[in-house]
Amino acid sequence: MANGEYTLQELAVFLSAELKGDPNCRITGIGSLDQAFSGQISFLKDPHYFKYLATTKASAVIVKPEHVNDSANFIIANDPYLAYAKISVLFNDAPKAAPGIHPTVLFGEGCEIGSNVSIGPYCVIGRKVKIGENAQIEAGCVIGDDVVIGEKTRLYPRVVLYHKVKIGKCVLLHSGVVIGSDGFGNANEKGVWHKIYQLGTVLIGDDVEVGANTTIDRGAIGDTIIEDGVKLDNQIQIGHNVHIGAHTAIAGCVGIAGSTKIGRYCMIGGGVGITGHIEITDGVIISGKSAVGKSITKPGMYASSIPVMPYRIWARVLVRLAQLEDMVHRLNVLEKKI
Amino acid sequence: MANGEYTLQELAVFLSAELKGDPNCRITGIGSLDQAFSGQISFLKDPHYFKYLATTKASAVIVKPEHVNDSANFIIANDPYLAYAKISVLFNDAPKAAPGIHPTVLFGEGCEIGSNVSIGPYCVIGRKVKIGENAQIEAGCVIGDDVVIGEKTRLYPRVVLYHKVKIGKCVLLHSGVVIGSDGFGNANEKGVWHKIYQLGTVLIGDDVEVGANTTIDRGAIGDTIIEDGVKLDNQIQIGHNVHIGAHTAIAGCVGIAGSTKIGRYCMIGGGVGITGHIEITDGVIISGKSAVGKSITKPGMYASSIPVMPYRIWARVLVRLAQLEDMVHRLNVLEKKI
Amino acid sequence: MANGEYTLQELAVFLSAELKGDPNCRITGIGSLDQAFSGQISFLKDPHYFKYLATTKASAVIVKPEHVNDSANFIIANDPYLAYAKISVLFNDAPKAAPGIHPTVLFGEGCEIGSNVSIGPYCVIGRKVKIGENAQIEAGCVIGDDVVIGEKTRLYPRVVLYHKVKIGKCVLLHSGVVIGSDGFGNANEKGVWHKIYQLGTVLIGDDVEVGANTTIDRGAIGDTIIEDGVKLDNQIQIGHNVHIGAHTAIAGCVGIAGSTKIGRYCMIGGGVGITGHIEITDGVIISGKSAVGKSITKPGMYASSIPVMPYRIWARVLVRLAQLEDMVHRLNVLEKKI
Repeated sequence: MANGEYTLQELAVFLSAELKGDPNCRITGIGSLDQAFSGQISFLKDPHYFKYLATTKASAVIVKPEHVNDSANFIIANDPYLAYAKISVLFNDAPKAAPGIHPTVLFGEGCEIGSNVSIGPYCVIGRKVKIGENAQIEAGCVIGDDVVIGEKTRLYPRVVLYHKVKIGKCVLLHSGVVIGSDGFGNANEKGVWHKIYQLGTVLIGDDVEVGANTTIDRGAIGDTIIEDGVKLDNQIQIGHNVHIGAHTAIAGCVGIAGSTKIGRYCMIGGGVGITGHIEITDGVIISGKSAVGKSITKPGMYASSIPVMPYRIWARVLVRLAQLEDMVHRLNVLEKKI
Repeated sequence: MANGEYTLQELAVFLSAELKGDPNCRITGIGSLDQAFSGQISFLKDPHYFKYLATTKASAVIVKPEHVNDSANFIIANDPYLAYAKISVLFNDAPKAAPGIHPTVLFGEGCEIGSNVSIGPYCVIGRKVKIGENAQIEAGCVIGDDVVIGEKTRLYPRVVLYHKVKIGKCVLLHSGVVIGSDGFGNANEKGVWHKIYQLGTVLIGDDVEVGANTTIDRGAIGDTIIEDGVKLDNQIQIGHNVHIGAHTAIAGCVGIAGSTKIGRYCMIGGGVGITGHIEITDGVIISGKSAVGKSITKPGMYASSIPVMPYRIWARVLVRLAQLEDMVHRLNVLEKKI
Repeated sequence: MANGEYTLQELAVFLSAELKGDPNCRITGIGSLDQAFSGQISFLKDPHYFKYLATTKASAVIVKPEHVNDSANFIIANDPYLAYAKISVLFNDAPKAAPGIHPTVLFGEGCEIGSNVSIGPYCVIGRKVKIGENAQIEAGCVIGDDVVIGEKTRLYPRVVLYHKVKIGKCVLLHSGVVIGSDGFGNANEKGVWHKIYQLGTVLIGDDVEVGANTTIDRGAIGDTIIEDGVKLDNQIQIGHNVHIGAHTAIAGCVGIAGSTKIGRYCMIGGGVGITGHIEITDGVIISGKSAVGKSITKPGMYASSIPVMPYRIWARVLVRLAQLEDMVHRLNVLEKKI
């Protein structure tokens, strides 16, 4: 297999899937059904795109069994989107980190660096740091004392891990991520805030991905915990002592206040805000821009955000919202009269 | 012209505007009408500030023709705020990046660096990177392989550009910006997320400004596109395959989910959240903190955010919101009875 | 006193508090009442936790006078949470920055560096920078020309301060913080934006803490001001010419638009958005995820966010919201008929 060029046969084997059409058809990339070029493979996920199946220029399409016809080359999969996800790695041309440890990298004493670890220029590694084999640490990362980084984990440029943070295996941390910064803990004495020193750390499981500029604070007492398989998008803020269950996915710009526990297999939409000291059970889906103010004990979909309206209509709604109390009283009066 | 010191005559010539008063009046800075010192020039934009025109200590004021009187020195402009914007560059004392390429800068093979390019200390530049003439790259930036940076573009300290990102001319990228990080793409198989490798990149036009810690993800298939003249504030998150039309301005903390297309000449207020896979036409204005849940096909102003009320009043509104359904039924009953 | 190990007597003396029980009881850490180990001290803040007082494994507990009994070791404090905050520093094991100035640090001309200052590897310091004694600047920070940093202030790794920013004493700036980036100033001419150069700077008082990846823009004209004792959480965006009064605390993901003035002793919840050019008086509390659209002149608690409901219920509320206008008309008709 040449990198980034495969026969349809090779892709079908990779997916353990059936193919229909020319097994020798050469595939050099992936395109969306409406915009794919010849030489690309596409996939039919969204019923809206069914109309493009007849006209696509893709050389092959991944489809469900019921969408196979005689007009093109197909890979047949029950979940074409998942099949696309699986082959995407084959066409990934993102460069790997340069092998080896750059001479400008600085280490504190007592570090244990696994075999085949890459560390890029101008990284600063603290004392007693352990980095597992095949990990990649890109340029400009700063790793605090006593940090542990699992094998095959990759830090993109300019990640900061504060002291004692523990990162599992096969984790991806994108640029600008900060893990282990102090939680927001202050106690008030006559109006003046006293800092509460943050004595815990952050524990991150395996197969976690953390998006660019996301921040995860260390625990005040005890640790902030991100379990295996959690996927975090960009610019998320996770407060101290938050616990996120395995395989939960959280979209961009979400904020989660301190000590909240989120279950497994949850999906949190973009821009959601979640208050502190609550518990969200497994399998909860929260719609984008919603606010979560208390615990959620039943799985299912929740929402509270209002989609935009033309400004003049919305201005009237705001007026009426302020009159709701009055409307109820008017209803009460009417009901008594009749 | 001494840097940062001009006669009123010189400023009028620079603006191609008429002046009234002393052409030799020396101007050394810009102040707001109510707080300006002697030696500063001010401007009258907001009618609220008209009252300060009589008492300002500014040595000259930029005003509309109808506000000229005999009491002071004026530059006359149809849009005083625009005139202020234009002269602001004359008083800008922000230091330029140090000339030349610092000896600590590391290059991959095959880079093409234009004439008069500045690159600050501890920058790491990948392979086959092209940087246009007069570009300024400040300290600690990390530039991936195959990146293209246009002429006169400036990267403030600690910007990261992932591989293959293309940046136009005269672009400003503020500190902490990350461009080209992986989009949030995952496909679910029995609860476990499979990463969708992000095969596209990010294309940024000319005259774009990107605020501090803003993140722009690379496309999954195809590219994320920011057209010419787009202005992005701080801490904005732009998902994969988003397309932002020319001359659109977006305020801080906005999140835009994947594959959404925003038109030209739009203005998006701070903290707005925009869902994925929708289209917003040209000339749309979205009020701050609103949520956009579906496509907008007509220009104009849209909103959905609720301004704060005293807590006790708001708590009643929340109670009544939950009773809206019941209120409608009560109305129905009443109408049937009468 | 061994670091991180104290007798109960020593802690009581440190707090100037009374103790009851064994003064020689050895305390090596802090735990929550329900999860503490033997050897840890805990505290009773939340009445919900009262039930754990009988069963806790903590070796001592900080309680209010009314909660003292004969069953355990106590420190007696009117505000146990504040007492916990005060002793937290004793158990803080966060490493200090390495002493001295690392040989890789680069300085511009004319800097004044106080005694006992630490500066970590690969920091880049501009011209005429003044750093007060005992300040700690960690790895990878970039400090612009003419910056002033007060004594005992600590910059965690990868902080950027633009030119002329002034930081007080005993300030903590967490990783990824950017202070002094350009405010979002643009003037429109026939659809095209002209940049307004940002001529002011940022002034930060003493005892301020700024969370990871928070951004504070420099003033357009005049300065952005953060007064003494302000506490800012992570991922906050503060626009140009904002003024935040002393001892105000702001939680994560808040955005404050330009020229807004916030009073002293305010508390702003997470994810709040505050519009520009308004004034919020002293002692205002804003509930999380709310939107502030105009000035607030009276102290007290304000809110406007809606907590999530199950999706189907919320979908009905949205339908009814759009019908509010109609409901009022129906009420009017009914009232006329009766």
